[in-house]
Amino acid sequence: MTAIATLTNHQILLASRPVGLPTRANWRSTTKPVAEPSPGGVLVKTLYLSLDPAMRGWMNEGKSYIAPVEIGAVMRAGGVGKVIASQNPTFAVGDYVNAGLDLQEYCMISQENIKRSGMFKIDARLGLTTWLNVLGMPGMTGFFGLMEVGLPKAGETVVVSGAAGAVGQTVGQIAKLKGCRVVGIAGGQAKCDWVVNELGFDACIDYKNGDVRAGLKAHCPKGVDIYFDNVGGEILDMVLTKITRGARIIICGAISQYNNTTPVKGPANYLSLLVNRARMEGIVVFDYADRYHLGVAEMAGYLKAGTMKSKEDIVQGLENFPETLLKLFNGENFGKLVLQVAAD
Amino acid sequence: MTAIATLTNHQILLASRPVGLPTRANWRSTTKPVAEPSPGGVLVKTLYLSLDPAMRGWMNEGKSYIAPVEIGAVMRAGGVGKVIASQNPTFAVGDYVNAGLDLQEYCMISQENIKRSGMFKIDARLGLTTWLNVLGMPGMTGFFGLMEVGLPKAGETVVVSGAAGAVGQTVGQIAKLKGCRVVGIAGGQAKCDWVVNELGFDACIDYKNGDVRAGLKAHCPKGVDIYFDNVGGEILDMVLTKITRGARIIICGAISQYNNTTPVKGPANYLSLLVNRARMEGIVVFDYADRYHLGVAEMAGYLKAGTMKSKEDIVQGLENFPETLLKLFNGENFGKLVLQVAAD
Repeated sequence: MTAIATLTNHQILLASRPVGLPTRANWRSTTKPVAEPSPGGVLVKTLYLSLDPAMRGWMNEGKSYIAPVEIGAVMRAGGVGKVIASQNPTFAVGDYVNAGLDLQEYCMISQENIKRSGMFKIDARLGLTTWLNVLGMPGMTGFFGLMEVGLPKAGETVVVSGAAGAVGQTVGQIAKLKGCRVVGIAGGQAKCDWVVNELGFDACIDYKNGDVRAGLKAHCPKGVDIYFDNVGGEILDMVLTKITRGARIIICGAISQYNNTTPVKGPANYLSLLVNRARMEGIVVFDYADRYHLGVAEMAGYLKAGTMKSKEDIVQGLENFPETLLKLFNGENFGKLVLQVAAD
Repeated sequence: MTAIATLTNHQILLASRPVGLPTRANWRSTTKPVAEPSPGGVLVKTLYLSLDPAMRGWMNEGKSYIAPVEIGAVMRAGGVGKVIASQNPTFAVGDYVNAGLDLQEYCMISQENIKRSGMFKIDARLGLTTWLNVLGMPGMTGFFGLMEVGLPKAGETVVVSGAAGAVGQTVGQIAKLKGCRVVGIAGGQAKCDWVVNELGFDACIDYKNGDVRAGLKAHCPKGVDIYFDNVGGEILDMVLTKITRGARIIICGAISQYNNTTPVKGPANYLSLLVNRARMEGIVVFDYADRYHLGVAEMAGYLKAGTMKSKEDIVQGLENFPETLLKLFNGENFGKLVLQVAAD
């Protein structure tokens, strides 16, 4: 047993709302004592935290699909941790869990907050960080977004942006397993090579060094039936010129626009939806929460069978969070970005 | 019998492709002789022609949902006419027909072009111009777009732009008949009063003299479940800020953008689709051609029962086409814009 009373909890709080890219000045560190869990509660030691583009949105004021993080609050983050003290019969000391742990070393989850935190036990044999990637929110986003909004049919052409990211890698691999032609869009040759050679995408367009329009033309000779969009901006506009009759565009995110200090660039080619009787639809993974277990079971099956891979880009140290988050916005992360807070 | 050989056929041809608003210089008039129909063919005297925003798109070069009108060709237009000579057993002299008649006084339709022209006999007792409005393409656009993409449920709030136009008036009236709350957006007090007082909309926002944002807030207290968009631009963006979870946006047109000499303004608030898990989908009426008769039957039933109205704005004279078309783009038309080419 860990001596709970001897522990301190480093936390990272949102100090101010960023304008454009977040800087160190937007964050504040603090230290709190750690207490034994209250009756029915659980104390979790944070091992890995998921860093996601959506975090940028949570830092803004105003209504979105989830409430903003309040100024002075611990920054919201999902993570994987280990139960180090428990007053709850469902969770035993030593259990690995996935939950909303937030940016801190220890997370005290009271009985009434267990459900809200989304806490569930995970099978560590599939890898801990895998539960923040293919088996976690990004994986479920990709799975339900592609399957339920994209409605892929074998032989169709699926394009996915942010192809080497957490959602993108899942989407592309599932689409391949469903018999689609898959074309990724990613930044840099290394990522493009990886999604083609390791994940089995049919092609990948390097948006940093190549001509996306020409790449779409070359690699999507029959047009784009499904576009899974994580980036927005110019790339969305270019794909809109290539969609087929009845195409589905899944709006999952718009990482190119999250740090804008000017208005979001709307898709100027949106009338391609009219010409092509196509659909653009937004998804939020939380809507599928009652069926995550089905998505996880399918993904876990692929992982065990070796027909799916899960690549994480792991950075060490809670204190490195501010700079690490920025990797998402300059495209430096290679695989799902994860912050390791402590060793197991 | 009319003495065919004595007739001349005034036609309006596309002389050049417009930049921005079409001008007289983009059109050319010509006169052709009129001949007896060939075997299996029909000669139709044009009575009324439908003037539609989509015509502006047909004047542009390049691929769209329909081929552009070629330079030097008679301008494409749907219309209602009377058969004045026939070598076809399906159509008798004196029959009223709806067909692609184009911008000319007489339309000679050969046997092989009858199907392509979409020609069918109409019931003149429902009114001739009604067949270019509620019972015609605009009506079918509104009916199938609303019902099959909008999927209205009783109690939902439906907003429709271009509310006093051909498509808008149909959409709003059907939505009311289906039990929805209906809020129109139209230009000018007279149109707004008409859609509320005559068509039974719950409210109408005057975009020319009022604050659309405030109007949406006031008249859509539960948000917008369905937006039927005929205009695009700023109004689309404003509605996007008011949509509900799972909202459906039907992209039928974007009249505010058709005469742009700058790039189309994409909807900057499109990420509201993500936040609200909403859908934006384009429609083209031709896709429902095999079921027009079902739509027409339903609309005709409403017209006969007096639960639906069909208002046309009728301008006289083929030679007035160039200026009349512009009424659509400055919002001067009040009801479905129709050009009367000849008296019955």
